[in-house]
Amino acid sequence: MSKAVVLLSGGLDSAVALSVAKSDGHEVYALSFDYGQRHSRELRSARAVAERAGVAAHHVVSLKLDSWGGSALTDSRINVEEGDVNRTDIPVTYVPARNMVFLSVAASLAEAIGAQHIYIGVSQVDYSGYVDCRRVFIDAMQQAVNKGTVMCAERGQSITIHAPFIEMTKAQEIALGLKLGVDFGLTWSCYRGGERPCGTCDSCKLRAKAFAEAGIPDPALNQGL
Amino acid sequence: MSKAVVLLSGGLDSAVALSVAKSDGHEVYALSFDYGQRHSRELRSARAVAERAGVAAHHVVSLKLDSWGGSALTDSRINVEEGDVNRTDIPVTYVPARNMVFLSVAASLAEAIGAQHIYIGVSQVDYSGYVDCRRVFIDAMQQAVNKGTVMCAERGQSITIHAPFIEMTKAQEIALGLKLGVDFGLTWSCYRGGERPCGTCDSCKLRAKAFAEAGIPDPALNQGL
Repeated sequence: MSKAVVLLSGGLDSAVALSVAKSDGHEVYALSFDYGQRHSRELRSARAVAERAGVAAHHVVSLKLDSWGGSALTDSRINVEEGDVNRTDIPVTYVPARNMVFLSVAASLAEAIGAQHIYIGVSQVDYSGYVDCRRVFIDAMQQAVNKGTVMCAERGQSITIHAPFIEMTKAQEIALGLKLGVDFGLTWSCYRGGERPCGTCDSCKLRAKAFAEAGIPDPALNQGL
Repeated sequence: MSKAVVLLSGGLDSAVALSVAKSDGHEVYALSFDYGQRHSRELRSARAVAERAGVAAHHVVSLKLDSWGGSALTDSRINVEEGDVNRTDIPVTYVPARNMVFLSVAASLAEAIGAQHIYIGVSQVDYSGYVDCRRVFIDAMQQAVNKGTVMCAERGQSITIHAPFIEMTKAQEIALGLKLGVDFGLTWSCYRGGERPCGTCDSCKLRAKAFAEAGIPDPALNQGL
């Protein structure tokens, strides 16, 4: 059976990405990061999503990006802003080079276990202004993987980075997730780090907008883990 | 003063890279990884080199790549081979996607502190068969940094990956390091993880060959830290 590494934050995007990887026929190795994020609550959701999906393994890697901060998510002195779904500037929750780090570690795991697929749930439509959610970046990382791993550069194998939602809205992701049986009640999006979603940060507002557009209530608002 | 992040393993290449960054006029932020390497002894050397150089900061990041192994350096069940400086195959000490991970974390630190330079001491001449020491890979990572960081993709700044030895032999690096005042007695290359260099692994043999070509004795063989 082919293997896939799935980057799993515990949010709704990555939960759908995991289901896509499974429906594509792969054995799934989930990969999450304890990177000093304010909302480490998301890791509990990641574990629940991975368990529900019956993954082959779930690695939770500790990598303290909060050693140098640079983001409201990794530096408690920077406040999480009030959300704005029409934001055009870079939000304070941007974590420097986060997806580059996550994809690189995913490539390391993929090569170690012989997985030819990596899934990441980024979208350049509803992307919060994060530059590392765009296709040009994913394409550049694909080149780095092609040149920087023995599997790709020497052994004639491939490791393909799949970003199945890169052109989708979050509402489209939700519709796809529902078809695939994703339980969105298990997922977590809020940036503020409380025990309940704040409802006011960028991530909560983007999520609420997406469920409204998808025409269904957000199950996470009515159930706890 | 301009800032530079220098990847510092504690080996001779990275010690020279640090001195090059300083002689280029940068304030240096050294970055080392405790990645579960068999030869974690090298971190003691990294600290000594950083301290001697008077860096602005030295981050030692814990990132357990030995969770999945895939290399003699991160899986104690795989033996380090006897060295062969004319090797053409991929050695068992290759760590999957290691330089991709290291450069990505370096990019995260660089962006967090506003450093426009990253130094890495790789060479595609004496590169042990590691694909992630070649120029095509460094060029691909430069593109990933250009597209995946806000500094480069949105703010019109640059983060340049410098690989000053990419076309140099280790002997040439040693000659350069001597000019810059590098104390090679502080550096550590052996892969086996003992308290003294084994003299027989790939890394020890490449080092011995380089000092022989440079025409000087290796000071690390006659002094301890």
